[in-house]
Amino acid sequence: MTTIDQTINELEALFGTRVSRAEAVRKHHGDDLSYIPAMLPDAVFFAESTKDVSQALAICNANRTPVIPFGTGTSIEGQTHALKGGISIDVSGMADILAVNEADFDAVVQPGVRRKQLNEHLRATGLSFPVDPGADASIGGMAATRASGTNAVRYGTMRENVLALEVVLPDGKVIRTGTRARKSSTGYDLTKLFVGSEGTLGIITEATVRLHPIPAAISSAVCTFGSLQGAVDAVIATMQSGVPMARIEFLDEVAIEAANNYSKLSLKIAPTLFLEFHGTETGIKEQAETVEAIAAEYGADGFEWASRPEDRNRLWQARHDSSHATRALRPGSANFVTDACVPISALADNILAARADADQSFLRTKINGHVGDGNFHVNYLVMPGATDEIREAERLAARVVERALESGGTASGEHGIGIGKLKFMRREHGPALESMVALKHAFDPNDIMNPGKLGSLPD
Amino acid sequence: MTTIDQTINELEALFGTRVSRAEAVRKHHGDDLSYIPAMLPDAVFFAESTKDVSQALAICNANRTPVIPFGTGTSIEGQTHALKGGISIDVSGMADILAVNEADFDAVVQPGVRRKQLNEHLRATGLSFPVDPGADASIGGMAATRASGTNAVRYGTMRENVLALEVVLPDGKVIRTGTRARKSSTGYDLTKLFVGSEGTLGIITEATVRLHPIPAAISSAVCTFGSLQGAVDAVIATMQSGVPMARIEFLDEVAIEAANNYSKLSLKIAPTLFLEFHGTETGIKEQAETVEAIAAEYGADGFEWASRPEDRNRLWQARHDSSHATRALRPGSANFVTDACVPISALADNILAARADADQSFLRTKINGHVGDGNFHVNYLVMPGATDEIREAERLAARVVERALESGGTASGEHGIGIGKLKFMRREHGPALESMVALKHAFDPNDIMNPGKLGSLPD
Repeated sequence: MTTIDQTINELEALFGTRVSRAEAVRKHHGDDLSYIPAMLPDAVFFAESTKDVSQALAICNANRTPVIPFGTGTSIEGQTHALKGGISIDVSGMADILAVNEADFDAVVQPGVRRKQLNEHLRATGLSFPVDPGADASIGGMAATRASGTNAVRYGTMRENVLALEVVLPDGKVIRTGTRARKSSTGYDLTKLFVGSEGTLGIITEATVRLHPIPAAISSAVCTFGSLQGAVDAVIATMQSGVPMARIEFLDEVAIEAANNYSKLSLKIAPTLFLEFHGTETGIKEQAETVEAIAAEYGADGFEWASRPEDRNRLWQARHDSSHATRALRPGSANFVTDACVPISALADNILAARADADQSFLRTKINGHVGDGNFHVNYLVMPGATDEIREAERLAARVVERALESGGTASGEHGIGIGKLKFMRREHGPALESMVALKHAFDPNDIMNPGKLGSLPD
Repeated sequence: MTTIDQTINELEALFGTRVSRAEAVRKHHGDDLSYIPAMLPDAVFFAESTKDVSQALAICNANRTPVIPFGTGTSIEGQTHALKGGISIDVSGMADILAVNEADFDAVVQPGVRRKQLNEHLRATGLSFPVDPGADASIGGMAATRASGTNAVRYGTMRENVLALEVVLPDGKVIRTGTRARKSSTGYDLTKLFVGSEGTLGIITEATVRLHPIPAAISSAVCTFGSLQGAVDAVIATMQSGVPMARIEFLDEVAIEAANNYSKLSLKIAPTLFLEFHGTETGIKEQAETVEAIAAEYGADGFEWASRPEDRNRLWQARHDSSHATRALRPGSANFVTDACVPISALADNILAARADADQSFLRTKINGHVGDGNFHVNYLVMPGATDEIREAERLAARVVERALESGGTASGEHGIGIGKLKFMRREHGPALESMVALKHAFDPNDIMNPGKLGSLPD
């Protein structure tokens, strides 16, 4: 009997039908929203408790069986692909909200809780969990990917919004990191180490997250520009003005065309900013006046307000659907998207260069982004399996990343490494990469956790 | 020849008079602002460059000689004490501000740059580095201690304000962590790992820190309360209101008496809040009205405004001098201070219990704190070497920490572990402590970096 069979037999003996070898189940779990073809695990285990996760990891560790943690499978760099087979441990069934501490602005959740579920649960409290990567991802997965999204410019990413974790280590030991206190100086920041570790150090089985008060007043606006340069320069000037933007999103002409088609909007086809202001009534009025004046300087056509909640929701739903909408421009196409993040002063040059590159290519390309953070996305419309197209997208995406690194930025602002961006790790981190490998080895000496990804040396 | 002599000889051969064996120098470097008696290193090396640090560490590592990094020696839990002798590496001479990127709101500094020096340098830019632990500490030391202070409630601690680091590892290898981008999802967050590592993983030789725009309008106020409970409850209600306080500091009656004496103020002797509002003119007016109404509900006597910059500076200088001022109440006394941080809902109970404990003790005690974060300090006025007094202070401080941990808080919000709080690490972190030990071993296999402190199992 092979080792993997041994592992599956042991898991089945303990957990019965919660272990699946069905191909459809394995295919779903060895895939995500990326262009990367599925890589199937040998089996999927549906965990229902921390104890389940602990027992399953102990078995896998003893047998040196690879383990891939799975939440919702909404990552986009191949984070859940079973690169070396093994067991996908699905924690989506661990979806209880364990506590909401209204007075302390925090909530304790199981890892399978989705962000929309949490916000629905918080509806009566006047609080919200603002980290919003678009997809209705699980909190555990968002923590593991260090997710962010449209609100991060104001409320931070998962890095700032995870206070504490319960984690099962590869040998099955359960640890708790952090506390419910806002800050601490007692030792190595293990919480921040697990946030962004992409399932390579252990499995998150509980998270304590920060909540934020829903502001007294919210307003949203759309603003179109005569040029891409003008739009991006307006963002830079706005951020430098110190206005506490809640959201400041860039969409290029392709993104607007896609949104008009898919989300039934009738926006002018031009480089566009979606803006949101949070504060008091007088505060948001003041903020909007400042930003409107800045935008005018950079060639904006003026603000079109979405003041009613339903108009606002329609706008942000369209922004969230941008990925689907763009793919709908070329039916059947896959989601080849890269993201990079640069110091804001380098944002215009980076986006303009990505646009120029794309304009010289045969691939249709959309650019948008959470530009207040210096974070932008480039989507290439490729057909699954069309190797020439994928090769071209890889070439263009590599140039996006290389320029970002040359600008003092990073190879990914929020999508993470997965399989797709391992090749940039050396370039970005230099000799610090060996420190990451040493760290991975300290936590996972048998290299069972999502092996071949983060914490490994690229080939 | 002993190993330590070997190390010192090798350092002297390379660096000449920049290596000192003088007792006065060693005494200064084996001490800090704590009550803990000095523990002298065998020699002090004054580094002037990253290369210096790298060469010195390589020598120490080869000889298994302990190394204690030194910035300004303003820590307060024995972080710079040479618990096992060895070489103190003083980086205070590496004090150049290497870059200020105004458009990106960041600065790149050597580790010996002090926070006041940086803010002086920024004077013309409209930007500031807001992390303010009171002492004019070095940025490297502040990063290593994960310092925070009065402004952290609004602008975050060193955890949020360090974007990137250059670090020399124990074997002399130089790595860079992080980038100048605002956010990143590319691998383990080594920056956050070195922030708060208290010199046990490597030596910080460069830091990239966030800067923040100086607000258009600032106002400060003092507000006294009829009871300690009222003052703390007003803080809790203020934080829950969502008003973005820039500073909200609590001082008890002892702190006020001390400030009146030492800083020539004439404040009413009562539980008091020092408040600061940052924003636009209309914004801070609105904030102040909200907070004044809340304070009135909790028995405040109303706001006394410090509107002129000189009045404001006098107020905050008095707050910063609180530690000196309190010691001046008992000339010759040492700085036995503990800090803890709790979820805000537990703040009143924790402070009231600390006060009640102190009132039953023969030691005079002051309580103050950065209460907007749930962080409070308890100062016990002890004479150096008075073992009965120190024992009593230790007993009282342990109770402060135990209650904080029972409340879901942490043993230190900002002072760190050093030697003084090692004994609480197991209680706070449980089995995660072994993960910290493993992590320390991965970075420092020969255990030369500040040995016997963070990353070691307590005796």
